[in-house]
Amino acid sequence: MNDHIPVYDNIISAHNKIKPFIHKTPVFTSSSINSIVGNQLFFKCENFQKVGAFKYRGATNAVLTLQKDLLNRGVATHSSGNHAAALALAARTQNVPAYIVMPESSPQIKKQAVKGYGGEITFCEPTIEARESTLKKLVEKTGATFIHPYDNFDVVCGQGTAAKELLEAEPELEVLITPVGGGGLLSGSSISARFINSAIKVIGAEPENADDAYRSLKDGKLYPALKPNTIADGLLTSLSELTFSIIQKNVDEIITASERYIALAMRMIWERMKILIEPSSALPLAILLQHSDRFEKKKIGIILSGGNVDMDKINYLLSAGDITARTG
Amino acid sequence: MNDHIPVYDNIISAHNKIKPFIHKTPVFTSSSINSIVGNQLFFKCENFQKVGAFKYRGATNAVLTLQKDLLNRGVATHSSGNHAAALALAARTQNVPAYIVMPESSPQIKKQAVKGYGGEITFCEPTIEARESTLKKLVEKTGATFIHPYDNFDVVCGQGTAAKELLEAEPELEVLITPVGGGGLLSGSSISARFINSAIKVIGAEPENADDAYRSLKDGKLYPALKPNTIADGLLTSLSELTFSIIQKNVDEIITASERYIALAMRMIWERMKILIEPSSALPLAILLQHSDRFEKKKIGIILSGGNVDMDKINYLLSAGDITARTG
Repeated sequence: MNDHIPVYDNIISAHNKIKPFIHKTPVFTSSSINSIVGNQLFFKCENFQKVGAFKYRGATNAVLTLQKDLLNRGVATHSSGNHAAALALAARTQNVPAYIVMPESSPQIKKQAVKGYGGEITFCEPTIEARESTLKKLVEKTGATFIHPYDNFDVVCGQGTAAKELLEAEPELEVLITPVGGGGLLSGSSISARFINSAIKVIGAEPENADDAYRSLKDGKLYPALKPNTIADGLLTSLSELTFSIIQKNVDEIITASERYIALAMRMIWERMKILIEPSSALPLAILLQHSDRFEKKKIGIILSGGNVDMDKINYLLSAGDITARTG
Repeated sequence: MNDHIPVYDNIISAHNKIKPFIHKTPVFTSSSINSIVGNQLFFKCENFQKVGAFKYRGATNAVLTLQKDLLNRGVATHSSGNHAAALALAARTQNVPAYIVMPESSPQIKKQAVKGYGGEITFCEPTIEARESTLKKLVEKTGATFIHPYDNFDVVCGQGTAAKELLEAEPELEVLITPVGGGGLLSGSSISARFINSAIKVIGAEPENADDAYRSLKDGKLYPALKPNTIADGLLTSLSELTFSIIQKNVDEIITASERYIALAMRMIWERMKILIEPSSALPLAILLQHSDRFEKKKIGIILSGGNVDMDKINYLLSAGDITARTG
């Protein structure tokens, strides 16, 4: 399915398909954050999406798009993050199995989440090779279809539906910012945004400490993520050929933020908006805070990608914020 | 104003008066929490109210109800909590001063909140006598009107508007639960609930470690709060004659929860609903978890009273939750 590039019509189809299964998440505003950043922000709250992340959109679309005979054999992926939980729930909703390969060393909370949504976990050693070979064997054995977290046409189309909803609700937006890790959300969003408003500025927000997408777009060649080290643990992955080609075509710029600003932005959204977002979701506000000279009096749409915070890590995440407050 | 008891007409008037100034907060549901408690819960999200708490409703109504000449001289209160912030913002919205007496020893974050909303702080020693005498002098000097946090007719009417909105949105509710501290929210809510549905069960939820309202209702006489010691720091106060008389008339029962269940419920709402609530807001869910045998397959309305969590205390609050997980 990855030999062609999605267009907006594909996102419309995806949206119609997944609508009965997803939440139409609300758009929140915060007058206090607006006055801090000097722009008017519209936050699309995908932290309130099922499984707590936009990933449910793409996973649901991928599952629903499978031919019936393939669907019945189930789906599979290797992931310890939101995509695994999303795929497990999307599969359960269609009464088919989801086989999830994850390292034995994954945090207990992530194992529980996938199990809680009915996923069948196969553990492996914590190396990429082990993950891929375990997945390959599993797929051969079960006949399940591998659903990549972002290098997948239908997943990208599903992820693009959040920006579609946001721009339909707020057609006056001049800028759209999403976090970028593997690029599924950014590429899908960019297709929706470009179609709905050709003049809109589409920006990816990435951690300085995991800036492979930034470097890839700048140099025009796809770099892998090199030892990424960031509290934004949803953004550790590299772009794929598919997402990179879409981003090259549609995205104006990728801007990076430091760990200090990521923590500061996350804490600001918790404190001022009273909603829980995971660190990866803080990237768009983080770049607005860190590069405040670049944005002024604009109507800016932001996708809050997820809300799955490991409660046992909250203190660690917030201490990054405290360091910011003291030294920033 | 405290010589008579509000009726539902007074709450309707209050609502019409404050509507242009308050947020009509959303009602959230959570299928995962529903399946844990075996009831259908409807959460009225006053954590999203201005200043992050329902207190803005009562403070706004009290300010708007003042005669013009009194209003111009401003308002005053002694409080270090949400009422102080609420009164400060309500006064600023009408361009009149708010004089807030708080102990020098109050947390920096609370001083900043009141200042941020334009309140003029007068510090005092951390005793009740010092607070009251400082307030008295301030009122004599400025001519400002003292607005008590809950022993005030107009404040109670304002607080009753949250339950009014909730029951208008969800008329099928069979039970309504609010936290109870001084009783402003519970008494106002009970008037709305009784009028809209005479058969509804109205319940106050109170920490075991601050159970003066529970004992007062049981024994039919007003007890003071004796050395309350709870993470639910919005619920340390005692009922007043006004709130007690309304509660005696309208409230079916007050049920208490332990610190362990308060922390567990707070964490559950953070994790499952992705919203930030302060510990006091967790009381209704805490009693449902702790006394699960008492409630079954009911449609239950819950008022999430506020979302002002001190980020520097999060670890302390969550470790109470961890203790619960280990020992509960």
